[in-house]
Amino acid sequence: MTETPSGGDLSQLRRLNSLMVIRELRSAPTLTLTELSRRTGLSRASTEDVVRELLENGWLAEVPAASGMVGRPARRFRFRADAGRVLGVDIGGHKILALVADLEGTVLHSARVAVAPAMRRMERLAALDGAVAEALAGAGLTTADLWATGVATTGLVDGAGRVMLSEALPEWTGVDVGAHLRRLVGGPALVENDSKLAALAESWCGAARYAKDVVVILAGLRTGAGLIIDGKLHRGFGNAAGEIGALPASGWIRAQEHLRAWPPQDGPAPGRAGAGRGADPHADKAADKAADQEAAAEAVFEAARAGDRKAAAVVRRYVRDVAVGAAALVLTLDPELVVVGGGFSRSADLIAEPLRRELDRWCIRTPEVRISEFGDEGVALGALRLALDYVDRELRERRELGDPEHFSRRV
Amino acid sequence: MTETPSGGDLSQLRRLNSLMVIRELRSAPTLTLTELSRRTGLSRASTEDVVRELLENGWLAEVPAASGMVGRPARRFRFRADAGRVLGVDIGGHKILALVADLEGTVLHSARVAVAPAMRRMERLAALDGAVAEALAGAGLTTADLWATGVATTGLVDGAGRVMLSEALPEWTGVDVGAHLRRLVGGPALVENDSKLAALAESWCGAARYAKDVVVILAGLRTGAGLIIDGKLHRGFGNAAGEIGALPASGWIRAQEHLRAWPPQDGPAPGRAGAGRGADPHADKAADKAADQEAAAEAVFEAARAGDRKAAAVVRRYVRDVAVGAAALVLTLDPELVVVGGGFSRSADLIAEPLRRELDRWCIRTPEVRISEFGDEGVALGALRLALDYVDRELRERRELGDPEHFSRRV
Repeated sequence: MTETPSGGDLSQLRRLNSLMVIRELRSAPTLTLTELSRRTGLSRASTEDVVRELLENGWLAEVPAASGMVGRPARRFRFRADAGRVLGVDIGGHKILALVADLEGTVLHSARVAVAPAMRRMERLAALDGAVAEALAGAGLTTADLWATGVATTGLVDGAGRVMLSEALPEWTGVDVGAHLRRLVGGPALVENDSKLAALAESWCGAARYAKDVVVILAGLRTGAGLIIDGKLHRGFGNAAGEIGALPASGWIRAQEHLRAWPPQDGPAPGRAGAGRGADPHADKAADKAADQEAAAEAVFEAARAGDRKAAAVVRRYVRDVAVGAAALVLTLDPELVVVGGGFSRSADLIAEPLRRELDRWCIRTPEVRISEFGDEGVALGALRLALDYVDRELRERRELGDPEHFSRRV
Repeated sequence: MTETPSGGDLSQLRRLNSLMVIRELRSAPTLTLTELSRRTGLSRASTEDVVRELLENGWLAEVPAASGMVGRPARRFRFRADAGRVLGVDIGGHKILALVADLEGTVLHSARVAVAPAMRRMERLAALDGAVAEALAGAGLTTADLWATGVATTGLVDGAGRVMLSEALPEWTGVDVGAHLRRLVGGPALVENDSKLAALAESWCGAARYAKDVVVILAGLRTGAGLIIDGKLHRGFGNAAGEIGALPASGWIRAQEHLRAWPPQDGPAPGRAGAGRGADPHADKAADKAADQEAAAEAVFEAARAGDRKAAAVVRRYVRDVAVGAAALVLTLDPELVVVGGGFSRSADLIAEPLRRELDRWCIRTPEVRISEFGDEGVALGALRLALDYVDRELRERRELGDPEHFSRRV
């Protein structure tokens, strides 16, 4: 890129130079003027001009020099991760989780609202609004502070953010999640399937961050899968990749049934507390059922951990069935790594070893199996990453930068 | 790239310029001097010098001007596809097919030798040597004319060309196919799994040449799969992608058993002719069995075509089981396209529609299903492409060109 204005459009040139400096500082923690000048190809004087302006309008900050250094150290600059905020939301069958983060992805506040699979769509959308409002309020922000929102939802999602099909939540099929969120936050909102975003999170900053080909299994009250191929999220031609669970032979439908059959009919039923918490009897029953299912799943893992042989057999059958679908994914792709995420990843002590053994039984080359460190927050982290990818794309592709306060409003 | 020699190494410069011109002509059918000069960035005079030298030593040919043109047309040049030859070999369970082609992949001669799954490795290697010798002799060539050889084999292959595991041909596990071929042809030999090369062929010049994400099913006396992801052959971390058939739940093992049960025990047994053709009773029996299996498969398709209801039921069961594994691949990857290749693709009239229906039953988004046009030659064509990829890589990465006659010997 040239620094000599031809045609006199100096302001246009300055905008482009500003974007170059911003891009370099998005990919490095801190840089000196000399480093910025070398990386952008701008002269020292132009670099100084651009950096001064970016400091003034709040895009950059100067990093304080370390004390005790001999001589005057070169000034260092960083991109201001707090210049903007992003929101990541996971709309699940059993919970809605909203995270507010800065532009580096550091989470500032999170809000969690329990929902039930049988909830009607308006109720679920109202719960979503509540979670978003709580997350923003907790971080001391309004929707105007958000540069972008990433949304994870169960089900298949089209390019505009509408749920094309949700097997798990029939009421959710056809909901235009993207449009709802855009009205709610007043800015760009990107929607993607939850298992795909769980994979994105693992690839970004989780157990898969150094691997190129990865299968991420989302193990919870449903089982899902997301694929990283050649370092990128694989969406598929119709955004329907990873849906192996739809095939009965994968065992994933049956896997959940084992858990639902717990506790045995002669045992005590857990999780019956909390009935009558709302005005709508449908919602109440649904919420109860969801609480029951979560509690039942928790209970079977706990009982197995405590040495209950029936519970151990249920967990064994669950893992055995999940392993068949996982083996189908592994045999198809031959990934370097399988990551197990989702709510059940907290019971890694009961799941990991049996899963490794079962995979070893079916696979030609058994990949390494790792447990996610994100518990049931991986999907929401992936939604954050989706929002951050949008911001990075904007910073890369825009022809104007403006000042941070008006950046998101121009989208 | 500069044209001004600094340090006086003119011959080095000329070599690099020659390679630039060759590369441009590998990616365009014909080019004029003006076009070559513009694409390479070389001056007109340098381009003329380089082209003259490449014409003299046989890398380029001049394309005759079309008659009836007004004025003197610009001279056009093409890369001489006949400057070198490549060999592609498919080592299957039931046949060995060797193709000799020019550097555009146009097949000049092919040779086919029948083998049997139960053959011992020395016999199969001897049959391989025979097929290669026949293909070369038919094209009037010797091994010295070959620039590269691509080899397809059943089983998993390591980076050096050794068969790590062959379920179909237990005797074949551990055979160093690469080393054997390199001794045989005295030049570079690249080895890859047969299903993967079938996919490569479809992506190169077959039914999948305009698609980015493709599942290729190899349907024959065994069922295999190769994957094209983002326009490239997906090999997997340990070169074991596409091996869904190893999972019993995929149905691919059972699919073959339906065919093997034909003809029913009360019917006539086809294909018993041709016994006693060699000296080795094992080989005889094996060859007979292979002929039986091929004949039985042919017979069941023919009987179904003729209206035999039992045969139609066998074909239906076969397709139903193949479809489960195919659905697992489709649900995993969500490809744009499924291509059915292999020997049974000749019975597309019986297979295509039922397969579409079965896929539609299991898949969330059913992709288009196409039948390969290559019959049972797709794998060998993929082996040719493997050899051509090697040649292109060499032409791209080499620092010296030399003359065509010595090109292959320098590898």
